[in-house]
Amino acid sequence: MSATMKAAIFVKPGTIAVEEVAKATIERDDDIVIRVVRTCVCGSDLWFFRGLSEQTPHSQIGHEAIGVVEEVGSAVASVKPDDFVVVPFPYSCGTCPVCKAGFESVCPHGGYFSACQAEYLRVPEADGTVVVVPGSPDDYDDATLASLLTISDVMSTGYHAAVSAEVKSGDTAVVMGDGAVGLCGVIAAKMRGATRIIAMSRHEDRAALAREFGATDIVPERDQAAIDKVLSMTDGYGADAVLECVGSKQSFDTALGLVRRGGVIGRVGLPHDVTISAEGTFYANIGIKGGPAPVRHYDIAGGLLDAVLSHQINPGRVFTGVYDLDHIQDAYEAMDQRNVIKALITL
Amino acid sequence: MSATMKAAIFVKPGTIAVEEVAKATIERDDDIVIRVVRTCVCGSDLWFFRGLSEQTPHSQIGHEAIGVVEEVGSAVASVKPDDFVVVPFPYSCGTCPVCKAGFESVCPHGGYFSACQAEYLRVPEADGTVVVVPGSPDDYDDATLASLLTISDVMSTGYHAAVSAEVKSGDTAVVMGDGAVGLCGVIAAKMRGATRIIAMSRHEDRAALAREFGATDIVPERDQAAIDKVLSMTDGYGADAVLECVGSKQSFDTALGLVRRGGVIGRVGLPHDVTISAEGTFYANIGIKGGPAPVRHYDIAGGLLDAVLSHQINPGRVFTGVYDLDHIQDAYEAMDQRNVIKALITL
Repeated sequence: MSATMKAAIFVKPGTIAVEEVAKATIERDDDIVIRVVRTCVCGSDLWFFRGLSEQTPHSQIGHEAIGVVEEVGSAVASVKPDDFVVVPFPYSCGTCPVCKAGFESVCPHGGYFSACQAEYLRVPEADGTVVVVPGSPDDYDDATLASLLTISDVMSTGYHAAVSAEVKSGDTAVVMGDGAVGLCGVIAAKMRGATRIIAMSRHEDRAALAREFGATDIVPERDQAAIDKVLSMTDGYGADAVLECVGSKQSFDTALGLVRRGGVIGRVGLPHDVTISAEGTFYANIGIKGGPAPVRHYDIAGGLLDAVLSHQINPGRVFTGVYDLDHIQDAYEAMDQRNVIKALITL
Repeated sequence: MSATMKAAIFVKPGTIAVEEVAKATIERDDDIVIRVVRTCVCGSDLWFFRGLSEQTPHSQIGHEAIGVVEEVGSAVASVKPDDFVVVPFPYSCGTCPVCKAGFESVCPHGGYFSACQAEYLRVPEADGTVVVVPGSPDDYDDATLASLLTISDVMSTGYHAAVSAEVKSGDTAVVMGDGAVGLCGVIAAKMRGATRIIAMSRHEDRAALAREFGATDIVPERDQAAIDKVLSMTDGYGADAVLECVGSKQSFDTALGLVRRGGVIGRVGLPHDVTISAEGTFYANIGIKGGPAPVRHYDIAGGLLDAVLSHQINPGRVFTGVYDLDHIQDAYEAMDQRNVIKALITL
């Protein structure tokens, strides 16, 4: 009889079960298997939880994890059993021109994880994917482990918004979205030297965390009122950079209205019904950049791992609820009802 | 009786007259008037010449000029009579946050010239607009004067395409469009360190000039065939950077098809019926930037003036026909019929 493991299973919208399934195992020479130490629920998981996006019934779920290497395939060179690793939500070959350009998240030989909410996880293309953390999980306190987990997705995604928006020293940056990604975008804008960081939020807990992370101003308004507010705060010129961490038409249109001529909108929210005017952006010299975050690139070359380990940044603060795997249904419900900003799962 | 000057006048599509009109004069304290030494016909002038865009009958035309300062308004501080200047096609205040960010071409207090094909030109907001050239026109040979004229528009516009496309050392860059702007885009891609420069051209004279300017490959194919060709030249990954110097839907769609994931399309062709997919660009992490070129920024801070004066670049080679103002109708016809790449007008 083959080994089993506990895993979160999508049953139907609103219902997540925890079941015994076949344990993750090496399938290819370049795979590793990790024992998951922390995973979490993402805002994007709420799409299938709410029945708003397709998800195969009775499928495994989750795309964020940190853990300890349990087994390595014969072709893996960069990690060995017992290594502690962050698993970026995209896997990637690490060697093609797309990866070498720092865009591992759109590697044509890669893909995205979808089974991280489990005791074990198979990681394909391990050499081109994982981020090795010095030591073992036992060497770190819970707060640091939480921050390390954020550099598997949300912190790196917020950073991609800031890089894509070309935030630079002295800028006024606007962050659209007060979910975990937007809040991490505030951290990223500060890391990149923005001196005025305007966070769009109408939730007291999130606004407070945005301020803790470096937001200098909170704007609760939306749509034209939000545009008017930011224009009034910038002598009518608009923000140098906009981090668009929502992805809705409403949010993108607002971003277009409040960005300075010559500014850039960095997009990381999955676009839903967004339209981009080819003329409007052109005649105002507005740039549009972004997409799925190249997590590994930012964690290593971008310095996010070091920033977490040195406690320069504490993005793990976005986890305002902690659950064990057996209670992951509660974690989804708490996220869905906005009772927590982001739900951490311990194993 | 007030003074007059000769000026090109748009009569109707296909017909440009040269008439005596009221001489350009100081209207505001921050104006200067220059005596035009060289002007030229732009590819974008062909839109009204061909009746494809609106132009007021009996209006002055032209947006590119170099000349000598004749008169200065009382508030002008940076130039004096007899100074030699390049006039960027946009005028700009030079002091607002948009200008300070290097985007003078979309200064909310500025505008665009439309009367440069004449003996004299009024330049508003002179301190924030003109680029001073050392010495006088007599100090320079015809080739250098021609190159100086290109940094009033086409060379600076090609440079904006390269900057917007984020061309960097070692890149493979594709230049869409073999007009004067595209050819200057080749120069710009080389200046910024691209090692492979693929110029899209099916005209022998333009392809030859592209090669002289630094193109390593010429691709005459269009649409899917062009995409297939560039993909085959890049191991299937596409070009790191695309300089889109046309503006048509056909050209932009081709650009999208041949850019590498994570690459950027730098647009300087005025968009006509272009659509930008919010999803397609997002999921491939493709950036879209560009617009009217901040000429002054590139001429001074970007080093184009110095590059011309040191003969590091010779963009004036795009002028393959020379006319005097009285024969500007011939210049338009030669451009319209593609008998010349770009037509220079001497005064």
